[in-house]
Amino acid sequence: MLVVMQQRATAEQIESVMAKIGELDLQAHPIPGSHRTAIGITGNTAAIDPSSLVGLAGVGELIRVTKPYKLASREMQQEDSQVHVGAVCFGPGSFPVIAGPCSIENEAMLMQTAQFLLQHNVSLLRAGAFKPRSSPYSFQGLEYEGLALLDKVRQATGIGIVTEVMDASQVAAVEEVADVLQIGTRNMQNFTLLKRVSQSSTPVLLKRGMSATLEEWLMSAEYVMAGGNRNVILCERGVRTFADHSRNTLDLSVIPPLKELSHLPVIVDPSHATGRRAYVAPMARAALAAGADGLMIEIHPQPDQALSDGAQTLAFEPFEELLKSLTEIAPSQHRTLC
Amino acid sequence: MLVVMQQRATAEQIESVMAKIGELDLQAHPIPGSHRTAIGITGNTAAIDPSSLVGLAGVGELIRVTKPYKLASREMQQEDSQVHVGAVCFGPGSFPVIAGPCSIENEAMLMQTAQFLLQHNVSLLRAGAFKPRSSPYSFQGLEYEGLALLDKVRQATGIGIVTEVMDASQVAAVEEVADVLQIGTRNMQNFTLLKRVSQSSTPVLLKRGMSATLEEWLMSAEYVMAGGNRNVILCERGVRTFADHSRNTLDLSVIPPLKELSHLPVIVDPSHATGRRAYVAPMARAALAAGADGLMIEIHPQPDQALSDGAQTLAFEPFEELLKSLTEIAPSQHRTLC
Amino acid sequence: MLVVMQQRATAEQIESVMAKIGELDLQAHPIPGSHRTAIGITGNTAAIDPSSLVGLAGVGELIRVTKPYKLASREMQQEDSQVHVGAVCFGPGSFPVIAGPCSIENEAMLMQTAQFLLQHNVSLLRAGAFKPRSSPYSFQGLEYEGLALLDKVRQATGIGIVTEVMDASQVAAVEEVADVLQIGTRNMQNFTLLKRVSQSSTPVLLKRGMSATLEEWLMSAEYVMAGGNRNVILCERGVRTFADHSRNTLDLSVIPPLKELSHLPVIVDPSHATGRRAYVAPMARAALAAGADGLMIEIHPQPDQALSDGAQTLAFEPFEELLKSLTEIAPSQHRTLC
Amino acid sequence: MLVVMQQRATAEQIESVMAKIGELDLQAHPIPGSHRTAIGITGNTAAIDPSSLVGLAGVGELIRVTKPYKLASREMQQEDSQVHVGAVCFGPGSFPVIAGPCSIENEAMLMQTAQFLLQHNVSLLRAGAFKPRSSPYSFQGLEYEGLALLDKVRQATGIGIVTEVMDASQVAAVEEVADVLQIGTRNMQNFTLLKRVSQSSTPVLLKRGMSATLEEWLMSAEYVMAGGNRNVILCERGVRTFADHSRNTLDLSVIPPLKELSHLPVIVDPSHATGRRAYVAPMARAALAAGADGLMIEIHPQPDQALSDGAQTLAFEPFEELLKSLTEIAPSQHRTLC
Repeated sequence: MLVVMQQRATAEQIESVMAKIGELDLQAHPIPGSHRTAIGITGNTAAIDPSSLVGLAGVGELIRVTKPYKLASREMQQEDSQVHVGAVCFGPGSFPVIAGPCSIENEAMLMQTAQFLLQHNVSLLRAGAFKPRSSPYSFQGLEYEGLALLDKVRQATGIGIVTEVMDASQVAAVEEVADVLQIGTRNMQNFTLLKRVSQSSTPVLLKRGMSATLEEWLMSAEYVMAGGNRNVILCERGVRTFADHSRNTLDLSVIPPLKELSHLPVIVDPSHATGRRAYVAPMARAALAAGADGLMIEIHPQPDQALSDGAQTLAFEPFEELLKSLTEIAPSQHRTLC
Repeated sequence: MLVVMQQRATAEQIESVMAKIGELDLQAHPIPGSHRTAIGITGNTAAIDPSSLVGLAGVGELIRVTKPYKLASREMQQEDSQVHVGAVCFGPGSFPVIAGPCSIENEAMLMQTAQFLLQHNVSLLRAGAFKPRSSPYSFQGLEYEGLALLDKVRQATGIGIVTEVMDASQVAAVEEVADVLQIGTRNMQNFTLLKRVSQSSTPVLLKRGMSATLEEWLMSAEYVMAGGNRNVILCERGVRTFADHSRNTLDLSVIPPLKELSHLPVIVDPSHATGRRAYVAPMARAALAAGADGLMIEIHPQPDQALSDGAQTLAFEPFEELLKSLTEIAPSQHRTLC
Repeated sequence: MLVVMQQRATAEQIESVMAKIGELDLQAHPIPGSHRTAIGITGNTAAIDPSSLVGLAGVGELIRVTKPYKLASREMQQEDSQVHVGAVCFGPGSFPVIAGPCSIENEAMLMQTAQFLLQHNVSLLRAGAFKPRSSPYSFQGLEYEGLALLDKVRQATGIGIVTEVMDASQVAAVEEVADVLQIGTRNMQNFTLLKRVSQSSTPVLLKRGMSATLEEWLMSAEYVMAGGNRNVILCERGVRTFADHSRNTLDLSVIPPLKELSHLPVIVDPSHATGRRAYVAPMARAALAAGADGLMIEIHPQPDQALSDGAQTLAFEPFEELLKSLTEIAPSQHRTLC
Repeated sequence: MLVVMQQRATAEQIESVMAKIGELDLQAHPIPGSHRTAIGITGNTAAIDPSSLVGLAGVGELIRVTKPYKLASREMQQEDSQVHVGAVCFGPGSFPVIAGPCSIENEAMLMQTAQFLLQHNVSLLRAGAFKPRSSPYSFQGLEYEGLALLDKVRQATGIGIVTEVMDASQVAAVEEVADVLQIGTRNMQNFTLLKRVSQSSTPVLLKRGMSATLEEWLMSAEYVMAGGNRNVILCERGVRTFADHSRNTLDLSVIPPLKELSHLPVIVDPSHATGRRAYVAPMARAALAAGADGLMIEIHPQPDQALSDGAQTLAFEPFEELLKSLTEIAPSQHRTLC
């Protein structure tokens, strides 16, 4: 349920409505808008007597939210969300690109990649310290040592860090070096982890589960938002289907319904979706044209020597060409690359 | 297997190689290129003694084709195919849009749509006379009466006609009015129909089956080409997956591997893929950016009164807006709308 | 819509109700039951004034059928259908097994297989004359010559013949030798073919499309029934999913809902579903335990020399063992093998 | 890699081979068999010089394991594993049924269910204290309070407890009351959790991920086994496909390849797979006939009042009938219900 305050409602009136909601054993979530403030209500709203709220000073109207996700829904918030990460903004008008290697390998490579990105006006570096690997015998990432390297690069260059957190117990350590906490596809419904990052003030990048429906995905975003962290960026990365021509089936067709149903920004990871270097650039361009709010791309100074996922990783030069071609399409979407 | 002739090979030498292939009980398919001619060989090529061909006058080299599809493969023909339909060309550089109602309803509506399209420089009209419907109790199309209406509109306006043929027994009648024979998703492996249209001189639009792999799709194209009709245009229209946010899952990620493996043009039908009017334009733009060679879009003067598939059909005005936005993206793909 | 006649209704009264339905421009389909007759009505029943029928002599009650399939639905006919093929019956109590080679190869092999089957009390032989093959270069079956061989074996041994018909134009020829017309998975929505076999008096085995929903499958059965052929046997043969451990994913879980929604018998083809010899027997036993009404199994005197699908084909001895194990489970399902 | 010891090898020789493996910086996993002992080796085995092991006293032969999963593979251990839980054994010959409510609701209901089960010779109770729920606003289980209730019932009745653990941080508490640690479908690739339960001495029930391939599933089992816990029971619970007639598509066809590739026992959960009460019993019977080693069934004294998943939950009486029908089929599989 949503209480839309009148345009001239005072801060005191808003406070007073929130207090009333608390008295009813429900949670109040203030949603400031450009013209007026709304207050989302979650909890067992079925039992609310609308008259107990509608008569309060400053209240405009009450709207029942019909979707199972509330804070993530377009019903609750009509304006597109803007998630700020340093100087970068995920939302309408801009088109941030996140890039970097699959895993952190060593300091030199990380530093080289960060400098290359900053030279090209890309200010978010992705690189995994904790790596979810299907096999217990595969390289599992540099873990805490990797976090230390990320921190060094961040301090030295000022680049923003996007890195995965695989378990609630790792969140405190990852928060210290990350500008965005990435939740991987296998953890989209790791509810303990979702609840933990919902307590964080760091933005969360929530990858879609390998066979998650749109509703399940938004429900996982709702876990993060319901706990207090509104800075959720969704990330489509391909789903499981019968098709065998690429590793997963990149579901760009999820973007228009997502934009209809939710105000959250959504970016696309064509590297994991396709699993093949040659397919990354066309799918990246398609994502932009389909209405995505950004991209996440795997790059490496020497992809064929990458410790993981080399086959889907771009070298620096083709990445530069990709940026150039995105710049040509971006104006048609009223967006600027960053 | 592919015989690549020398650049200076004469017409007589080419004839002579083809005759030799015939003597070996194999089929020869000449493939003229910009620099030199190649001759595809199909049949039981395992038994060929290469020396029987390689020594013939004018022969450059012999290449074994490793894919199960031969004539459709990039190995056989490195240059992109160009399929000409009247003044329109499906292939690199251009971006034809096919548009029109799902089914033929009456002459007035058809004429109105054709005139609207021609005013906007769109010169191919789609409209179904034979309608494959899941239910025996649903409207099955105007059938032969519909073909007559198509013919009238074609004669009156000069617009090109793209229309579905559902069965081998209908091909002769449809050929008379159609500039492109459309094979629907449910008939992608109707081999009797494929063999029949392979005898036609009219280009074939081959929609991907609802759960066809890339290889199966190209094998169906191969049926048409092996019979002698090289003018095949592929059409992605969404596949069946667990996802429920759109009618089918539009698989744009099939385009880059298709371009890698085959020289055939591929267009996209976002109307049937999404099943929702609001999602058609963003997915059409994404198709262009992903490397598609054209589009097929459902439009109707009054979509809400359409006899079939109204929910996915654009009215004239949003279609005009779509054309405008495609025009903005096309230069980045080195293509011109037509 | 369904008119349920009173228990004591006379043949004349039934006739008279059917005539009245005809006058309303609707189709009447008599459905005799053990206690009383019902009359299914198809066509635009929305416009019917119930009072025009309910007052007629002998009419018990009118029931609106809510499903898009009518004649195939359990609403129209509560008792399980029994489809008779010679002495064999597909329906409750019995469990017919259909067996034989993928394709007809030669007379000797066919005769040997028929005799083996009859010795084991299996009285339906499957064998393909027309073979739907993904590749135009693969063996396409012996076609009309194959039909002649089937006829010979049938005359000589009295075994019943189940064989595929791929196109409407082949139906007349196939009807002459077949006891059951098989519609393959790729043709489940070949509506021209469905309409043609609906005019036949030979029972139809309708395989599920590779990605057909339960409703689409029953709608295809409805095409056959609406045209007048009520003898439809459904056949589950695996669907397309992401899973790669068997060729298709055998969907036994479709059987209970099918039994709930329809009165038609359903059999299972574990050979095409799994694609692997070693998996056929356990899935055949599971089909029986899940409530299937029969099986269709590929066998061959020398599977490793089969012209097609050898990898999924049982030799005679393992087939005998399978029959024995089915006989142990059948009583728990109140069924007898035949 | 696998070292197969000679039949007459002494305990000292085995020790000595394991010590040698340790010196090579590899892990040794002893696998006692009925005739002779084998020693699995994991780690970077590519670098092993076979001659360094093959000459040791008591060594029979060295076998390279070709699958990415090692300890879980049939190559490593040819005999079927037997996982003992109290007096119950998951493995050939027996067919344990695990039953109980979806979530723990209160002590009385739990006690009533346990007593009912024990009267019917069912000695494993399932009931969830921690509930993974798509929505943050749904009932999340009684959590630690629920564990206390499970402990009470276990102490009072002696029934074995199967209950889910959602996060590594909960394992210590769950181990204290559980006889089997259940890992849910959403956590099949929660690698932190898998590593944690690999340190436990309590058997692990590993549900298949919603879109996990057979190989990924066995790789997750390998995580548990590689850490030292060999007592892994696999559980098929339906996968995500396009099919909409049941909640998930129960993939019984995974059982035969699983038995071929692995020695681990596999059970089936038809309740979560189908999501519909009426479909549970036929799919349970099919699982037995397909070769499953047991079942997991949701039951409740009053299903329609269950706090979660009531639609798929059996009342006591239909569960009794299911047990009876399983008893009829079990002998054909050389199994006894327990």
